[in-house]
Amino acid sequence: MKVQRPKGTVDILPGESGSWEKVESIARNFFKRANYREIRTPSFENYEVFSRSSGETSDVVSKEMYDFNDKGGRHIALRPEGTAGVVRAYVENKLYGPDVVKPFSVYYIDNTFRYERPQAGRQREFHQIGVESFGSDSPLADVETLMMAHDLLAELGVKNYELHINSLGNAQVREAYHDALVNYFTPVKDQLSEDSQRRLSQNPLRILDSKDERDKKFLPNAPKIVDYLDDESRKNFKTITDMLEQLGINYVMDDDLVRGLDYYTGIIFEFMVEDKNLWESATTILGGGRYNHLVEEFDGPETPAVGFGIGEERLMLVLKEQNPDLFQEEGIDFFITNIGAGTEFKAVEVARSLREQGFSAQYDVDQKKLKQQFRKADRVHATFVITLGAKELENGVLNIKRLSDGKTIDLSLEDINNMQDVINKLED
Amino acid sequence: MKVQRPKGTVDILPGESGSWEKVESIARNFFKRANYREIRTPSFENYEVFSRSSGETSDVVSKEMYDFNDKGGRHIALRPEGTAGVVRAYVENKLYGPDVVKPFSVYYIDNTFRYERPQAGRQREFHQIGVESFGSDSPLADVETLMMAHDLLAELGVKNYELHINSLGNAQVREAYHDALVNYFTPVKDQLSEDSQRRLSQNPLRILDSKDERDKKFLPNAPKIVDYLDDESRKNFKTITDMLEQLGINYVMDDDLVRGLDYYTGIIFEFMVEDKNLWESATTILGGGRYNHLVEEFDGPETPAVGFGIGEERLMLVLKEQNPDLFQEEGIDFFITNIGAGTEFKAVEVARSLREQGFSAQYDVDQKKLKQQFRKADRVHATFVITLGAKELENGVLNIKRLSDGKTIDLSLEDINNMQDVINKLED
Repeated sequence: MKVQRPKGTVDILPGESGSWEKVESIARNFFKRANYREIRTPSFENYEVFSRSSGETSDVVSKEMYDFNDKGGRHIALRPEGTAGVVRAYVENKLYGPDVVKPFSVYYIDNTFRYERPQAGRQREFHQIGVESFGSDSPLADVETLMMAHDLLAELGVKNYELHINSLGNAQVREAYHDALVNYFTPVKDQLSEDSQRRLSQNPLRILDSKDERDKKFLPNAPKIVDYLDDESRKNFKTITDMLEQLGINYVMDDDLVRGLDYYTGIIFEFMVEDKNLWESATTILGGGRYNHLVEEFDGPETPAVGFGIGEERLMLVLKEQNPDLFQEEGIDFFITNIGAGTEFKAVEVARSLREQGFSAQYDVDQKKLKQQFRKADRVHATFVITLGAKELENGVLNIKRLSDGKTIDLSLEDINNMQDVINKLED
Repeated sequence: MKVQRPKGTVDILPGESGSWEKVESIARNFFKRANYREIRTPSFENYEVFSRSSGETSDVVSKEMYDFNDKGGRHIALRPEGTAGVVRAYVENKLYGPDVVKPFSVYYIDNTFRYERPQAGRQREFHQIGVESFGSDSPLADVETLMMAHDLLAELGVKNYELHINSLGNAQVREAYHDALVNYFTPVKDQLSEDSQRRLSQNPLRILDSKDERDKKFLPNAPKIVDYLDDESRKNFKTITDMLEQLGINYVMDDDLVRGLDYYTGIIFEFMVEDKNLWESATTILGGGRYNHLVEEFDGPETPAVGFGIGEERLMLVLKEQNPDLFQEEGIDFFITNIGAGTEFKAVEVARSLREQGFSAQYDVDQKKLKQQFRKADRVHATFVITLGAKELENGVLNIKRLSDGKTIDLSLEDINNMQDVINKLED
């Protein structure tokens, strides 16, 4: 029986991998321009890292995590998201110290793992591109994060999205809101889904995220956090939205937005794409917010922080629809045909020289017939073909052909060492 | 108690991550020029993928693998190396079919996992950069692979290495050699290590890899595979080494080289670095070879293949010694100071415009005092500082300063939109 990949995983093959690389390269370059630098944390962490950050009772931790005991009996887990490991690294490496410039701003491109039912844009191993910025509580830091999210999606070519924002306020606000939700849902507890009955005692905020029809009918009339915000939270929120308007970044105030994780405080946001070809309803491709207490959860000093994460699988689905140029297969510059004794080694040498000059170049290691070699040159989308036969080798005169129009010129073996000149001659 | 990273894992922080990115970017660019394209396979596979490829009794599979049952009871394992998943993907996606150009040549940059005792350059989560080429049995394909390994290390700046090569011959050769080893070691079986006593019945070739002193004393007089090569294997080997010589690639014939995995056939090779600052004895940073039967092990058609893998952690240790330029921290182009009411938003706008123009630019979200902002500009290695105060905003005249020599010029708000001109003026 053939061995297959595990359920919920995919192979990203050549032809598709190039577009992933392009997207990640655009993102890296974008982050670099904002002086966000890369951080790489382990793919697995001690289980406690995620139970502390996402909450022991969250779906992510209680149902979806790939956790197991390693050969030394340690309870470890593949990371279900990118933030927790970065916060753990921030504390463990004492990056809160005075030697490190604040805010400490980083990006990551992580593989992440959740045991969920696979569907379009949702795999069991998936990828997140994210940023985190530690050390500033200024609304300017929120705006910077939101602007980066917006401008990165724009640079990648994502269209038709809405930025939804909400504010969860400070700890007091959340406590008052928590009580209001308990008061609202308790009388109808018996009519809620089993999950939401559990959530009611553990984290009633998560009921608002429910997709269960039994819960959804109670959501429109549930208390809204906006009605519980204190003056300071309200003013802070307004400073942020005013600046978004000045920057020409459109947003929608979304009272129902709560995000699925425990650790958010202050502003939260999601970029949602509506595309009937992909999903029946608007779907989040980027989410984030402020989390001012997570560093303390990991026994670090009080540290305000804000960040966002992009679901790369969903992003790629959207880009395939909205920016198909990213998915064009690239060809190579040169294919070198070789026919006859002694030419094979010369072909290797020519390819090596061209590669050293920065060109892409390939030759036929199997020395098939010339016609087949030309066919291969075509299939790998070569721009030029250099013909190298025993006769050419003897005379020291090679032939180069531009496949797009068939134009050819002769060149000497020495010309190979300065191929840009030859190309310029062909372009004349 | 603080939560720590799992034993044997590391955080790659800003300051170091940039060098990893540079190395991977050089490798990607190098592979692209040879028309090797990327393949991404899952981080975990069904256990059987690795037990089939590396051998159920290999140390990798029997002692070092992170294997566990997922929530659906599937026996899965984090990949201990990169090749097996690629071969599984080759077969499962029918890449042997006529629609795919042959050889099918790919590269990967994978995170990989082995439960081993951590030491310098060896972590429990580590990284491999590798290539695989399927479909050609020509010695030209071996030479291409060897040349790529050599030229990539050269381009990265690795010095002081030796290329060790050996040939394992075809199946008949290996069988004869297997018998010779059994005959040689059986009389001294009781004096061998426990591991090697087990290997004697399972895979005597692996005894040659032993680092145990009890085994090592028997190795110098053990039969050498070179004495068992048939004419065809010998001729093939000579064709390869002749071509390496023509290409100026030095090598050492190494009778003791056998590689730790079951799947090799034909030529095998390792690039070994000797550096007393890093390791007591010569250490392999790149290894590979031909494996003509592995595709069949995965129930695919008979397919010759050849490839190599680089241990990225060890490579980085070597490069830190041998090419320190890669480890220089990069600065940013512009730091924008902002002081006074209304300047914070302008700073955001200026930074956004500069980033859009392709420059790296940062401002102080915390609006500290001007002196502190200049200090921050210094610490992030900014080339230029743009000063933006209430007065500058009112007059519409900004000041830009080159930190290296203190040279300053004035510019208008409109000049920001064409910053390259301003830089050119400063360079005059």
